[in-house]
Amino acid sequence: VSKQLTEPVTETKPEELEQVLAGAARAAAPFGALAPRDRARALVAVSDALRAAEDELVDIAGAESGLPEGRLRGELNRTAVQLRLFAEVLARGAYLDIVLDHADPDFAIGPRPDLRRIKLPIGPVLVYAASNFPFAFSVIGGDSASALAAGCPVVLKSHPGHPELSARTGALVAGALAKAGAPDGVFAVIHGDEAGVSALRDERITAAAFTGSVAGGRALFDIAADRPRPIPFFGELGSNNPVFVTPGAVGARGAEIAQGYVESFTLGVGQFCTKPGLLFLPADHGLEPALTDAVRAVAGGRMLTEKVHRGYQSRYHEIVGTAGVRTLVDGGEAGGLAAVPTLVATDPDTLLAHRHELVEEAFGPLSIVVSYREVAELPGLARELPASLTGTVHLDAADPADTESVRPLVAELQDRVGRLLFNGWPTGVAVTPAMHHGGPYPATTAPLHTSVGARAIERFLRPVVFQNAPEELLPEALRDDNQLGLPRETNPAGESQTWGQAVTG
Amino acid sequence: VSKQLTEPVTETKPEELEQVLAGAARAAAPFGALAPRDRARALVAVSDALRAAEDELVDIAGAESGLPEGRLRGELNRTAVQLRLFAEVLARGAYLDIVLDHADPDFAIGPRPDLRRIKLPIGPVLVYAASNFPFAFSVIGGDSASALAAGCPVVLKSHPGHPELSARTGALVAGALAKAGAPDGVFAVIHGDEAGVSALRDERITAAAFTGSVAGGRALFDIAADRPRPIPFFGELGSNNPVFVTPGAVGARGAEIAQGYVESFTLGVGQFCTKPGLLFLPADHGLEPALTDAVRAVAGGRMLTEKVHRGYQSRYHEIVGTAGVRTLVDGGEAGGLAAVPTLVATDPDTLLAHRHELVEEAFGPLSIVVSYREVAELPGLARELPASLTGTVHLDAADPADTESVRPLVAELQDRVGRLLFNGWPTGVAVTPAMHHGGPYPATTAPLHTSVGARAIERFLRPVVFQNAPEELLPEALRDDNQLGLPRETNPAGESQTWGQAVTG
Repeated sequence: VSKQLTEPVTETKPEELEQVLAGAARAAAPFGALAPRDRARALVAVSDALRAAEDELVDIAGAESGLPEGRLRGELNRTAVQLRLFAEVLARGAYLDIVLDHADPDFAIGPRPDLRRIKLPIGPVLVYAASNFPFAFSVIGGDSASALAAGCPVVLKSHPGHPELSARTGALVAGALAKAGAPDGVFAVIHGDEAGVSALRDERITAAAFTGSVAGGRALFDIAADRPRPIPFFGELGSNNPVFVTPGAVGARGAEIAQGYVESFTLGVGQFCTKPGLLFLPADHGLEPALTDAVRAVAGGRMLTEKVHRGYQSRYHEIVGTAGVRTLVDGGEAGGLAAVPTLVATDPDTLLAHRHELVEEAFGPLSIVVSYREVAELPGLARELPASLTGTVHLDAADPADTESVRPLVAELQDRVGRLLFNGWPTGVAVTPAMHHGGPYPATTAPLHTSVGARAIERFLRPVVFQNAPEELLPEALRDDNQLGLPRETNPAGESQTWGQAVTG
Repeated sequence: VSKQLTEPVTETKPEELEQVLAGAARAAAPFGALAPRDRARALVAVSDALRAAEDELVDIAGAESGLPEGRLRGELNRTAVQLRLFAEVLARGAYLDIVLDHADPDFAIGPRPDLRRIKLPIGPVLVYAASNFPFAFSVIGGDSASALAAGCPVVLKSHPGHPELSARTGALVAGALAKAGAPDGVFAVIHGDEAGVSALRDERITAAAFTGSVAGGRALFDIAADRPRPIPFFGELGSNNPVFVTPGAVGARGAEIAQGYVESFTLGVGQFCTKPGLLFLPADHGLEPALTDAVRAVAGGRMLTEKVHRGYQSRYHEIVGTAGVRTLVDGGEAGGLAAVPTLVATDPDTLLAHRHELVEEAFGPLSIVVSYREVAELPGLARELPASLTGTVHLDAADPADTESVRPLVAELQDRVGRLLFNGWPTGVAVTPAMHHGGPYPATTAPLHTSVGARAIERFLRPVVFQNAPEELLPEALRDDNQLGLPRETNPAGESQTWGQAVTG
């Protein structure tokens, strides 16, 4: 145990919070004015600093979260790679979505001025760290990385599950940013719920991002919406991540599916927002032995915090106690913060009759197998479920009829999930240009946006258009000579005369 | 007066509303599934139908709104062109923001699946029509056009200022859409505040758009945020659109600026969201005679509705009655719904001491001249103003020192307006690819988005990513062969190895 763990992190006092917010407000203009490539270099510096401190950080994280070393090293790597992804986004420059309309005396609704559109940073962003990813969704996780990439100062509200790691990572990030030329105040960590709520109410905060529970996220969303001047609140909340398996898939690789499902819902003691909470199997699936064997083979594990453990125990009792639910493997109550996997089974009627108990997320190593009669039933069931971060379909790709049978299900799912995956498992979210980690409420509070992947930067950018601006007062990115070499859409004079002709011939 | 005007439009009854909402929900999937070019053809058909009915629609609009014929014909043209702009957006296809990540066994954080991202329509959209643009921000204005372009059914809440025009335009739009192959229920008009609020609370509505007052827009925003499942609410509310004039600009073309300002703030009886409400002039500007002459030369006009007129009268009395405000031209109280332009003057200290009275939008033909001492004062003044749709700077572009003097002002303004214009006037918003009509609250409730221009479509699109999907279950736009010829970003295997290298060398 390192020395830091013996010095308790204290809650941020109002006067300290005032300093943090004032610093973030002061840093906004100079940080936002950095050229994209200079901010990219700062992100790479932070990425490198994380890697350089890997052993120390993983030590602290392990002691505070109870997560195994291998997982933490992998997560730190993911976090470092994520910072480099945003450096790449800045280097490519398409995120600025620059559009130049040339002045057009013949414009279809009267003379058009010279218009040059760009995206600018929205201002200081408040980020709430999550419990379940001490690195990847915490101090310098996806929300912070994308906000900094956008040019926004970040005020990071630490998660009480890993206070010392938060303080240490925060100091490291702030130091690396300063060394890379970022202004003072661009990054600070605050501790305690009171400071977290006060910051959200403060006029200097212009947007907020959150990953956590529906109850916690909704309470903060309500505060953000209720401000005299409301701000965007990007909350990633709860998700049941249903998985639908066709008869063909059971026939082709039933045992493999049983094994994969159990690994996915028990991974990390079931503490992932993409944990599959519902598995729809045909009634004659015959996989109960394989499923129960696989669940019994998984040892229990320590949950992240007392609060998470308490919440899980409560959901466990609620679910196993629901009439019409059969317990296949009962993990029971384990001692301390531990939880042992539980698997239950039910039918569609029971599921829908007790949707409050069975359909809402159970954060922990418990999942529900639902036996359906025919594939034609599945679209209707999908329609009854709340929106989710993910939806998964297992089918037999070698059988055209089996593949075709899920087309109506896919049509329903694509309207209520952010990621629709086939013949795989939803846990494990790749950090890539195309990734979308989002969905309608309650999956998120902002269905147009993602909290993972390159497009996460869009949450913290606000468009501005310059009209007939003198060249010397334009942002460098909008000047005629395009010295920064950015991708730009250009609309020449006269273009409005042909609008619509491409489709009418 | 046409026959229609003698048949009063009645408020939508609950059972009628239920039919409208059920129809919109049913239309969502088939309408969203149309190929972009087919939806584009439908928009062109609506545009052509509007033009074909121009004489009839302008007649009704004139009788209901009191707006002059020339203005209404111009507005109808703008509305028809706007539909063609969105047809062009669909034909170009970049709005789908398609990103394809190839599967990558060597991905930096473990094997990457095949990921294909696209944007899909969010679902039925509720649009509240505005009073001040019976065509361009009403039944088939920018909000409706962009929602339909995105593939969303539209439920249009009519404005009580032009009920008959709303009903007639609605029937025309629905007819043109049906003829172009759009499904039943894709477009409907509802009347009455009760129906408008009920619709906003209905689970089948997935997003809403509004143009109007701060009070009305905020009340609806609060309802949208307070739903069990909150939805995005794109409100365009109030704006004071400050104009800053340098001493150099006064010297170079003071008389022209006085004339242009008065024309802009009195245009359409001051009933534009981009009306300049504040004109900052150097203390020794000497333009009072030119300003007062110009104001006196503008006749009064009928305001749009009784409610707008009442609101204006109230703001007029509040402003002219504020201590420290000098009335330069007093339009007084005119009879009926009429208003005659009023110009007042004050100083920065009075402005900030009475910000509730003087800084909030006064919707109507009244504006405030503020005399400042030096240009260096302006950034601080700009910082004290609420966010606005526009900010305007008048400078002497031939004088490098005068141009340079506003650099700090421009830096402040770009953080609190959506459009920053130079040596022009904010009224008259071009409908173009680059246009941004938005801004932080209270200019809008959604600072990341625009309600005018090509990018307005983004408000009604939700990203979804397909992971390892069988080719035959992918949306056509995401298939390998790209038969639709859409622009797509492609990220090959191995790319993650070089992330960040472009900036670190």
